[in-house]
Amino acid sequence: MKKLKKQYVVGIDLGGTKIYAAVIDDKGNILGAGRKKTKAEQGFATTVQRMAACVHEAVDAAGVPYDAIQAVGVGSPGPLDLKKGIIINTPNLKWKDAPLKKELKKLLQKPVMVDNDGNVGVLGEYAFGAAQGAHDVVGLFVGTGIGGGVIIKGHLLHGFNENAGEIGHIIVNPDGPLCGCGNRGCLEAFASRTAIERDIRQALEQGVPSKVLEGMDNPKAIIRSKRLLEAYQAGDPAVVPAIERSAQYLGYGVASMLNIFNPQMVVLGGGVVEALGEVYVQKVRDVAVANCFPIASRDVRIVAASLKDDSAVLGAAMLAWGKGK
Amino acid sequence: MKKLKKQYVVGIDLGGTKIYAAVIDDKGNILGAGRKKTKAEQGFATTVQRMAACVHEAVDAAGVPYDAIQAVGVGSPGPLDLKKGIIINTPNLKWKDAPLKKELKKLLQKPVMVDNDGNVGVLGEYAFGAAQGAHDVVGLFVGTGIGGGVIIKGHLLHGFNENAGEIGHIIVNPDGPLCGCGNRGCLEAFASRTAIERDIRQALEQGVPSKVLEGMDNPKAIIRSKRLLEAYQAGDPAVVPAIERSAQYLGYGVASMLNIFNPQMVVLGGGVVEALGEVYVQKVRDVAVANCFPIASRDVRIVAASLKDDSAVLGAAMLAWGKGK
Repeated sequence: MKKLKKQYVVGIDLGGTKIYAAVIDDKGNILGAGRKKTKAEQGFATTVQRMAACVHEAVDAAGVPYDAIQAVGVGSPGPLDLKKGIIINTPNLKWKDAPLKKELKKLLQKPVMVDNDGNVGVLGEYAFGAAQGAHDVVGLFVGTGIGGGVIIKGHLLHGFNENAGEIGHIIVNPDGPLCGCGNRGCLEAFASRTAIERDIRQALEQGVPSKVLEGMDNPKAIIRSKRLLEAYQAGDPAVVPAIERSAQYLGYGVASMLNIFNPQMVVLGGGVVEALGEVYVQKVRDVAVANCFPIASRDVRIVAASLKDDSAVLGAAMLAWGKGK
Repeated sequence: MKKLKKQYVVGIDLGGTKIYAAVIDDKGNILGAGRKKTKAEQGFATTVQRMAACVHEAVDAAGVPYDAIQAVGVGSPGPLDLKKGIIINTPNLKWKDAPLKKELKKLLQKPVMVDNDGNVGVLGEYAFGAAQGAHDVVGLFVGTGIGGGVIIKGHLLHGFNENAGEIGHIIVNPDGPLCGCGNRGCLEAFASRTAIERDIRQALEQGVPSKVLEGMDNPKAIIRSKRLLEAYQAGDPAVVPAIERSAQYLGYGVASMLNIFNPQMVVLGGGVVEALGEVYVQKVRDVAVANCFPIASRDVRIVAASLKDDSAVLGAAMLAWGKGK
């Protein structure tokens, strides 16, 4: 009997709230997907089992035999020990030294490759999305936190301990708010989804007139992206300054990246960018270009990620194909 | 007659105030040096002639035949067009599109290689100084301005337009002072020699009691490094906060570099670091380590440059040897 060709991989996006797995071919086509909540609070073992279940769900949805899966790539929150595939610790998941690679490999019986979520995000956009054709790319993913990844001459920047690219944690103002990482004034503490929410809540507490919570079942729940966008477009006085501060600080962060990396392209992705779209990206671009050396902004393109939710799974697929270096 | 072996190169450090050229062998030995003031205000042609004169002075001092010089490398303030060897513009020298490589080659009749002063500085430390043996290195040179250079896996980071590494111009606080580059809140505007001097002068204007200017022939002249150090050691109330602010912000900048590059080593050089020594470096180190991810500071060494004034000429020599990539 002829041996089955292992022509697919699975990419997994492990997030603080959800797991997303996709079966992907070598052209970057997604053939099937599986999604579950992360439930990190139930412990690492639970989440790994949920990840494995997502993989099987994705394989079933794709309608391909499990034997045709060559390997599994995972984009995970960091910091990570890449070689061992261990999540050292991460504020969002609250585990310590979680042996992700080993346990997932045991459950799936497939080779497992792991990298930082920001790294796989930029890798996905580089291979299949907005950054195709560029070889010096900085990626910033603005969601609950801010993930980053850097490609230099076509290779991911990993650094000495393989934890480079934490652009969300450059200090953009040491007098700024406390960050989830424990330090003060990180880019993430100014520009993330969490920072926007915090700033809106503070404005509401201070009595700024706003309709942003109107009609919410639970006014203490996280304000959804769609609602944020509508309030922003309506000129809501609590929402507009919060979003503009996010864009402005992200712009400062991008300016610094232009001066440091002098990239050909900056890709902006993640839930905030996706929800707010070009109006947000344009503001970031304006601030970035105004605050860096002209030579660094001369030929750079600062664009929205094009793969939306899929950049991480597609980048994770690249890991699984062995193209994550 | 046997052809003379071209066994030496000349490295040139082109600074805002002085030119320093040195004849260097392939072991990094300096055989002879030449120094002149830059006199940039007299125009580019004058400075290039002074550079050529420095080269001849260095060759004479080395006692080697001019024919034994293989090539000349130059560390220049940026931004630069590396391929054409043009200084695009620079606040310190005030020229525009100065064809450094072409004109110097014409005068010297030798191949000329040019790179950014921060890049050659870190290259010198990497090849012959404090960063020997490390392959992921971030260099910061704190003088009139702040130059930077980054080595990744043994190669200089150049970027798409070859102007990467401008670490002095990351934005560390957008509410901060105006920088020489025209933007606000750059690292250079907080931590450079110029920033320290500015902060001291402001304190004096505000009536802070200080002896720092006592005995100076011209109290409006730049305060010399030795005087700064003495005043710092004596606890001068105008000088101490200025120097500590410099070290603190440099620490924030280094923290950001640790999170972005996750290097094996950070080398701190330039006049300020040289003058103030370990007490300054220790402060920078403490702030940096306290403000980055533990994984990024775990194995990194943050050290003073060891070549002092010579890091740029030795790095420029590496360029001339064709090892500047």
